Amino acid sequence: MERANKPITSDMGWSLPDRITIKGMDFCTQILGKLSFGDMAWLEIMGKLPTPQQSTVFNALLVTLVEHGMTPMAIATRLTNLGSPDAVQASIAAGLLGMGSVFGGTAETAAKMLQDALAKPGARDDIPGLAKRIAADYVERKRPVPGLGHPTHKPIDPRSPVLFRIAAENGYSGDYIRLMELVAAEAAKASGRVLPLNVSGAIGAIASELGIDWRLCRGIVVASRAVGLVGHIAEEIRNPIAGEIWARLDHEVMVAGLEAEKKAKGV
Amino acid sequence: MERANKPITSDMGWSLPDRITIKGMDFCTQILGKLSFGDMAWLEIMGKLPTPQQSTVFNALLVTLVEHGMTPMAIATRLTNLGSPDAVQASIAAGLLGMGSVFGGTAETAAKMLQDALAKPGARDDIPGLAKRIAADYVERKRPVPGLGHPTHKPIDPRSPVLFRIAAENGYSGDYIRLMELVAAEAAKASGRVLPLNVSGAIGAIASELGIDWRLCRGIVVASRAVGLVGHIAEEIRNPIAGEIWARLDHEVMVAGLEAEKKAKGV
Amino acid sequence: MERANKPITSDMGWSLPDRITIKGMDFCTQILGKLSFGDMAWLEIMGKLPTPQQSTVFNALLVTLVEHGMTPMAIATRLTNLGSPDAVQASIAAGLLGMGSVFGGTAETAAKMLQDALAKPGARDDIPGLAKRIAADYVERKRPVPGLGHPTHKPIDPRSPVLFRIAAENGYSGDYIRLMELVAAEAAKASGRVLPLNVSGAIGAIASELGIDWRLCRGIVVASRAVGLVGHIAEEIRNPIAGEIWARLDHEVMVAGLEAEKKAKGV
Amino acid sequence: MERANKPITSDMGWSLPDRITIKGMDFCTQILGKLSFGDMAWLEIMGKLPTPQQSTVFNALLVTLVEHGMTPMAIATRLTNLGSPDAVQASIAAGLLGMGSVFGGTAETAAKMLQDALAKPGARDDIPGLAKRIAADYVERKRPVPGLGHPTHKPIDPRSPVLFRIAAENGYSGDYIRLMELVAAEAAKASGRVLPLNVSGAIGAIASELGIDWRLCRGIVVASRAVGLVGHIAEEIRNPIAGEIWARLDHEVMVAGLEAEKKAKGV
Repeated sequence: MERANKPITSDMGWSLPDRITIKGMDFCTQILGKLSFGDMAWLEIMGKLPTPQQSTVFNALLVTLVEHGMTPMAIATRLTNLGSPDAVQASIAAGLLGMGSVFGGTAETAAKMLQDALAKPGARDDIPGLAKRIAADYVERKRPVPGLGHPTHKPIDPRSPVLFRIAAENGYSGDYIRLMELVAAEAAKASGRVLPLNVSGAIGAIASELGIDWRLCRGIVVASRAVGLVGHIAEEIRNPIAGEIWARLDHEVMVAGLEAEKKAKGV
Repeated sequence: MERANKPITSDMGWSLPDRITIKGMDFCTQILGKLSFGDMAWLEIMGKLPTPQQSTVFNALLVTLVEHGMTPMAIATRLTNLGSPDAVQASIAAGLLGMGSVFGGTAETAAKMLQDALAKPGARDDIPGLAKRIAADYVERKRPVPGLGHPTHKPIDPRSPVLFRIAAENGYSGDYIRLMELVAAEAAKASGRVLPLNVSGAIGAIASELGIDWRLCRGIVVASRAVGLVGHIAEEIRNPIAGEIWARLDHEVMVAGLEAEKKAKGV
Repeated sequence: MERANKPITSDMGWSLPDRITIKGMDFCTQILGKLSFGDMAWLEIMGKLPTPQQSTVFNALLVTLVEHGMTPMAIATRLTNLGSPDAVQASIAAGLLGMGSVFGGTAETAAKMLQDALAKPGARDDIPGLAKRIAADYVERKRPVPGLGHPTHKPIDPRSPVLFRIAAENGYSGDYIRLMELVAAEAAKASGRVLPLNVSGAIGAIASELGIDWRLCRGIVVASRAVGLVGHIAEEIRNPIAGEIWARLDHEVMVAGLEAEKKAKGV
Repeated sequence: MERANKPITSDMGWSLPDRITIKGMDFCTQILGKLSFGDMAWLEIMGKLPTPQQSTVFNALLVTLVEHGMTPMAIATRLTNLGSPDAVQASIAAGLLGMGSVFGGTAETAAKMLQDALAKPGARDDIPGLAKRIAADYVERKRPVPGLGHPTHKPIDPRSPVLFRIAAENGYSGDYIRLMELVAAEAAKASGRVLPLNVSGAIGAIASELGIDWRLCRGIVVASRAVGLVGHIAEEIRNPIAGEIWARLDHEVMVAGLEAEKKAKGV
């Protein structure tokens, strides 16, 4: 019944009594007080220090994702805080759990579309043609192109041009962004509708420019939003609204239930 | 059956088609590209922009909390990724859920101890006496003083002096830090043991200096760690270890179960 | 750098190619098809099979906890489903995270109060006196007695007498229930208010009668509610309401934000 | 800025001071003490009371899913309990979050395969031919057929025949089970390997026989496992192992890190 164990290794961090090593660097002398929070995030995820340009662009991505107002995630965090006020980790986790395929995952899906497409040999030779094929493929399968469309921000998502400008100013405006923009134009043409290149599309494209694997995009979105959810908890402490949200819905459902009951009884 | 609804308001963020307002600022022209990730975290949680000094100290706090190596939280995230590889939000949330009273909550508890103590009228007049009373109170109740002691880092936690230096250099070394250090000295004296002022104690004290409500300290710890857990997912993709962790434990439990079964049968 | 590992054992379950052992029983021949879901829950948590009486009472507890209508937890599950429709585990977990000290924890707190009190030597000799002291202690500390009071169910919680009757019919009405009822009466007298012995108080008392450790009460509440949250997901698929909840709140916050902005500008 | 609200209704449950209505039934007189936990689960998810046969088969499904030994989910729950011992809801949620596409989702995927296939007009006329086409399609796409194969249980999963027998004895052995068995046989033939019809395949098929929408299968798996995770917390309280799991991994990673550091320095 012996089992041959495989070794378990990790480069993330390990400690001795007098020092801490993170990603091969001495935490107390090389990281703490030297790196900003955003640059630490880059070190964790990319495994090395960012250049100043990478830092600027990556911080802009992170900042964009922190706060999106009264989202389903923020509401879930506040409602959870009502029942678990002493377990803040639970409230934050509850909110983050809504950052899935529909909200948190769209930057991921856009990045995957772009990275898959440009990984093919010769793909970069004819980006306009590639964009046309991608858009046509989505239209044919009747699937929405990731990174396009927005319920509120029309005809453009005001964040996208700012993000693209920051990327360009720092030397990160290349084939991925070009492809995303061309796909957006083709899809809008094919659908005959206004289809803004939304913030998820912009982030998917810029993350790809920065060399971030699409499989990490959702995680970056989630971690950034964790910061925003702490903000919502802070506001909930000052100005609680979760109890009112609950009371309104509970009352509305009760009134409707009574009505349905009366109707069923033929009253 | 009418119900008088109370108004629901929030200052976190709201959107119109062409603009986004976050904490009263225009996101696209005043925040995006202007604020770093760490400063955005301050804006979210404290409600206004940080001074350069606050930014430096707050970023150091956040950076300290990102990566603590192969913690129970990191292991839980990796194990969750094994079952939910397509739902990264679930893996991050699972890890964050361990940031409770034992790990994530110690900075909170230390901050609460300090903020409660110094909120009392006249408390700042005799900080050494206050420290003595606080330490004696914990000793009497046989409860560990929050922010003291560490399983690995002895006789000192190497992060604490660096954090205190950064705080001092930026004008944030005041009564809270002084009280924390005096409480640590008194508790060590009373217990006769080496009791390092650990990183949670340092963070609780510095957060108090920055004016951060103790009720938000755990949330800040949790949000910072979310960044680190994305790093662990990135490594798990490159160098998976969760499967081996599971297989080892499953095997060990099975072998022990078979042994116990044989013994029970008198074999 | 060698480390002396401690053995890791577990009696929960282990497998060989042709059989599965759970709590020392052969799953395929002794459990599957022989035990109901509620009895399996008892086996998992208590480590042996229930008697018919224990089964009846325990199933009643579990059933009571499944569905409490449009709670903050149900709303959080539905909102999470909006963003993570393909990760049902995330939606259920998000809802469960609100089963904390305020909602899920009250049965736990009531059970702890009763188990702590009756564990003291001689405590059972004078239960009326004990009840008086417990109630007086909460009144003195100005803390609510766990298991009493309800926002909707007044003057009595209609579930409590039914649960107590089921317990009595099965021989599980003893000192814990008596103490809980006397504490309720004393607290009502002391407060001068109607203080129904609510369902959490009833469950805490009956769980104590069944010999369930108070530290497991919240877990039982949480697991039962998991079933109810699947019901809410099922309804959300048939009759979605999460999008409307979000849209209403998002709109209300936006309108209030615009108003506040106008006022700030003196318009 | 007026918004036309859509009505929000729910049939799950609502309360008046003296009564509680759940799925249109009076909770205190029609459900509590009358329904077992498993039957309450059916009522919640299916919207009406089960027949005795449905009850037997559904309880067997639920029981099967409760306890799978030292899984990644059980380990994650125990590790989370180490940091959040006072927030049991967090430990259970952390474990459930691993019940995703790989573990919790396989019954769902199997049920979807079967329900999609048999929903097509005329599909039931030639089930052997349909099974052949399904198996061939997975082989061609080089995708594993859901519900087949097991790392431990070979050549058969001992739970599957027991579950199928229980289904047959209660009149729930029809086209879905037949199709699942034929697909398994075809896939085994095509692959030339032993491919046991595993417990997820059995559950997906039997759930389909019971009329359970495939979109609810993962939720049922998750809710059942919540019960099992309470069992793991109960054992962790009696016989803690999470600390040892952490200490072993932390130590192994530290030793490997030191080694790598020495090698990098050319020592």
